[in-house]
This record gives sequence, structure tokens and C-alpha cells, in this order.
Amino acid sequence: MPAMRAATVRDGEILIEDHPDPEPGASELLVRVHAAGVNGADIHQRAGRYPAPPGSPQDIPGLELAGEVAALGPGASRFSVGDRVMAVVGGGGQAELAVVHERAAMPVPVALDWPQAGGFPEVFTTAHDALFTQGRLSPGERLLVHGGAGGVGTAAIQLGRAAGASVAATVRNEELRPAVGELGAEAVEPEGFERYGPFDVVLELVGAPNLPANVGALATGGRIVIIGIGAGAKGEVHLGALMGVRGTVRGAMLRPRPLEEKALAMRLVEKEVLPLVERGEVTVPVAETFPLDRAAEAYDRFAAGGKLGKIVLLP
Amino acid sequence: MPAMRAATVRDGEILIEDHPDPEPGASELLVRVHAAGVNGADIHQRAGRYPAPPGSPQDIPGLELAGEVAALGPGASRFSVGDRVMAVVGGGGQAELAVVHERAAMPVPVALDWPQAGGFPEVFTTAHDALFTQGRLSPGERLLVHGGAGGVGTAAIQLGRAAGASVAATVRNEELRPAVGELGAEAVEPEGFERYGPFDVVLELVGAPNLPANVGALATGGRIVIIGIGAGAKGEVHLGALMGVRGTVRGAMLRPRPLEEKALAMRLVEKEVLPLVERGEVTVPVAETFPLDRAAEAYDRFAAGGKLGKIVLLP
Repeated sequence: MPAMRAATVRDGEILIEDHPDPEPGASELLVRVHAAGVNGADIHQRAGRYPAPPGSPQDIPGLELAGEVAALGPGASRFSVGDRVMAVVGGGGQAELAVVHERAAMPVPVALDWPQAGGFPEVFTTAHDALFTQGRLSPGERLLVHGGAGGVGTAAIQLGRAAGASVAATVRNEELRPAVGELGAEAVEPEGFERYGPFDVVLELVGAPNLPANVGALATGGRIVIIGIGAGAKGEVHLGALMGVRGTVRGAMLRPRPLEEKALAMRLVEKEVLPLVERGEVTVPVAETFPLDRAAEAYDRFAAGGKLGKIVLLP
Repeated sequence: MPAMRAATVRDGEILIEDHPDPEPGASELLVRVHAAGVNGADIHQRAGRYPAPPGSPQDIPGLELAGEVAALGPGASRFSVGDRVMAVVGGGGQAELAVVHERAAMPVPVALDWPQAGGFPEVFTTAHDALFTQGRLSPGERLLVHGGAGGVGTAAIQLGRAAGASVAATVRNEELRPAVGELGAEAVEPEGFERYGPFDVVLELVGAPNLPANVGALATGGRIVIIGIGAGAKGEVHLGALMGVRGTVRGAMLRPRPLEEKALAMRLVEKEVLPLVERGEVTVPVAETFPLDRAAEAYDRFAAGGKLGKIVLLP
């Protein structure tokens, strides 16, 4: 049986191991992966805290990838062999070959090179879903992004600006604030962010410690969308304050959703984000790339934080 | 100047005092009040914790009333002198006369007597807004009402059932559970309510102590709507659990909203609830009525809890 190399989670570490080549099932694509982004979920999975959803490879991490279509499963018709595609997957992206459902794949815009395309699908789909589908961000509104320098943060800032919102973003690493500012946000220190409010939408990528002040900084009718809790999962809400502004706290996650919901989210990205990418109005900041063999090092780099944009593996 | 009698908040007590007759302004109605419900907000206002919003009488409590139109302000055209109306007001309802904006008033259905009509507007508008506008309750979904025996609770149970949801309700007073059951809910003890879930919508009328278990009892995509926090205002949310089910915690309050929002909520009640009242599919349980002179006693009765439905003053 032919074998491919893949990042592999084993006992809290990331190794590179041989795995059988995956085979595309009905409506699936076999993709020769050229680039695969590293995300917070991978770090949790390495630590054994975040198993892959059923139906996804259990020991190969990676939620997003870009590459060329190498083969079509039965009935697959959206793409042809050789097409450049990028996709969100439930796992298995950080490998030489990956299988993706054709409806979870998008064409790669000409404007993106492989590292950018490999770091695009998860963070832009997550950011678009959080801001617009979950948060109902509208033109003229005020958006706060907590953790503005990371992959989802840099995506959200640009999408918020492109949609006509004014954007503030907290960035812990002072040296990154000018670069985040160039993406279209007022980049501020995390401490005392409330004074830049009130905000109509707060995108929480850091965690529960921000929750009380997020509620205090909400405008009437404001929405807090929680998609990252690395700094803590349990937070206190002053319900009287939430009632007073008729505010909302919503949690969202892309990974456990069924295919139809993920596919719908990706169709919205194709329609509403890819044109912005083609016009150069939205970019994919890549902080650093690593060959697949150095995946463990890439994970450590991701976990250390303080970077602008994506860490991407190149199988 | 002619004088009317009204419930009056003074130093933490409810007195009956003379006030100048109010005069209807542009698009307003002068209403001779026949019945006015007591609500939780009145109890808070008596204690000095909940001032009336600007533009409402500051020292006369009362958020809802029913009565006959006694006079029309300039330009008022929705009703005629002598019409039976009921209305939500920002304050001033517990008086012999009250002024209401014509767009905050609804016709009284033939099926309701004065005590029922006086106890209808605030709780049914609040319940309808919370379940449908805030909570997006849909047919076939599972609704949990915390505090099912009170005014908003009995309204919400009936509206949920009428909309095709299955309804569970927590009721602390065991003796009231059969009567709450007859309204269409499975009436259960508050302790361990999670075992009756998962729920698509949780209507929280009790307070923050329920919050952690509410989140734990949510179905995927579930919504918690907080409109009562008498048992506590600050609660802990496990954001990881909220993300896992893509859940929402929303706070809502009717009283501070601008006229256009209140009017919109009441138009929805006219359209979607009054037909159910006329057909007898929705009733207004009235626990006890008091003449206006005994308002202080009525407040104490309300605060004691353990009743089914509304306490209503009859000026």
C-alpha cells in the first residue's frame, strides 16, 4: 500500500510518521497538500484535550489545507484533477495527501500563493461566520477584536473594515500594533480596552478573563461572539448589565458542525470574501512557514504567540 | 387643578397620594384606569433600585394598565373616547388616570375582564418578545420556562404551546404545579431541571444561580433569554460548553426601550396573541386583586411569591 508522510499526534508530541494514502469516497477529492495552516485547535489536540470529530483522521491534525486535486472520488464534480483548491477539514490537513468533501473546498484565488492559501480557509471561514452569521455585523457599527494579531484576528479586522465597520483590536505584543493598524484597526493594549467602546460586536479570541469587561463595553443591542478561550473558559457575566443593553453572548465553533453547515459557511466565503482577496483588499499575513518535517517546531512557534498572522506547514 | 389618586413611591414605601391629573400630549391618550398589574419592576422601584425611565412619571409606579379612553391628545387617531384599551407604560400605571402613547396601546379583547386586561400587556408583551423576537422559538422546539407560575411564566408557557413548542417549567411551590401543568407545561421542581433537557430555548425569570445549569442543558444552537434576575444578577458561564453547543445567552428588558421598539413589540402582540385570547386558547391567570388603596398590601403579596399568575390593582 502506498504510504504518505503526515504530522501525527502521539503522547502529547507531534511526530512525522508514514500513513496509508487516504482514498477519496463519494463526492470527495484527494488533494496533494502544498500548504496547511496551524491553528489553536492543533495545539489543544497535541495536548490530548481536543479529539478530532468522528469521521476525521484521529491522529493527523490540521484543520485547513491548500493543494492540487490529485484524484476524484465517485460523483465528485465541482473540481477537476489539477485544480488549485483550499478547504476546511475536521482533521488530517497536515499531511502530504488529504481527502476533503468537494463542498468543503474552495478554489484558490490567483492572488494567493501556497502558504497564503494554506492559511486562509479555517481562519477566514471562522472569522466570516463569527462576524456576520453569528454577530450580524453591519456597516457603521463598531467592532472590537480581542487578539487582533493572530490568524483569525487579522482576518476579522480586514473583513470588518471591508464591511464598513470601524474596528478596534487588542494586541498584547506592542511591537505588532503598527502592523495590525495597517490592516485597518485601531490597535490597542488589552488593559483598559473598555475606554475605546462602546462596541456593537466584540469578537473574543482570547478567553473568559475579558468577559466582564466585554459586557460592560457593549452598546445597546451589542453581541459578544466567543470563538477562542485559550486564556480561560469560565467567566462571570453580570446579567443585569447584559439585560440593560439587551446584549448577547454567543459561543461558536466551526469544527464540530455537520458538513451542510460547514459547506454553507464556505459558500458564503466564496461569495463574500474571495472577491475581496482577488481585488487585493484582503490579505493573508503569513508569519512563518515550516517544512512538514519541522511540524513540532512550528507548533512551538505557534504556541509561543506574539506573531502576526499565520504559521503554515509546507508538506 | 383637578387631582387624582395614585400609588406613590416614597422612602421605600408605597403610599396613596393625590397628584395633578395628567394631560395627554401629542398622539397620547388619557385613560381612566380600571386595572393595573403589579410587576417585579415595581418591587424594585419601591426599594429605590429601579428609577423610572426619563419621560415617565418618576414617583408613580405601574408598567401596565387597562381602562377607558377619557380624552385624546392632539393628533391621536387610533382610538376614540370610551374605547377599552390596555397598554405598556414606562411608569404611572397605578393611578386613577394615566397618559399613554396611542401606539403603546392595544384594544382589549372581549374575552378579557378588567383585572385580566390590566394584567395582560406587560407580561404578554415581555413573554412574546422574549420567546419569539429574542429567542426565535420555533414549532417542534423544546422550551424551558424558569419560574413558570408567575405572570410572565404563565404567559410564556401558553405562548410556547400555542406556537407548537413542547414546554417544561420550573415551579418552586409544589402546590401550584398541577395548575401550571394545565396551562400546557410539564411542571417540575427547580432542583435538577437539567434532566428534562436538552432545551432549544430557556426563558430565565429567576436569576443567575440557574445560569451554569442552563448552559449545560442547552441543545445545539440553543438560546437562553434572561429577563428576570431576582435571585441573583451575577452568574458564571462555561464558555467552552457554550461554544460546544453554539449557544447564546441574551439579556432583554422591555421598559428602557424607545417608543418605536415598544410599539413594534405591541403590534406583534396584537397580531399574534390577541387572536389566541379571543379564541380562548390563551388565558390571563389572576391570582388576586386589590383596590388601589391597598396597593402596599398588593406589593407585599407579590413579593411573597408562590402565587399563580397576576396581582392586579383596581383603581
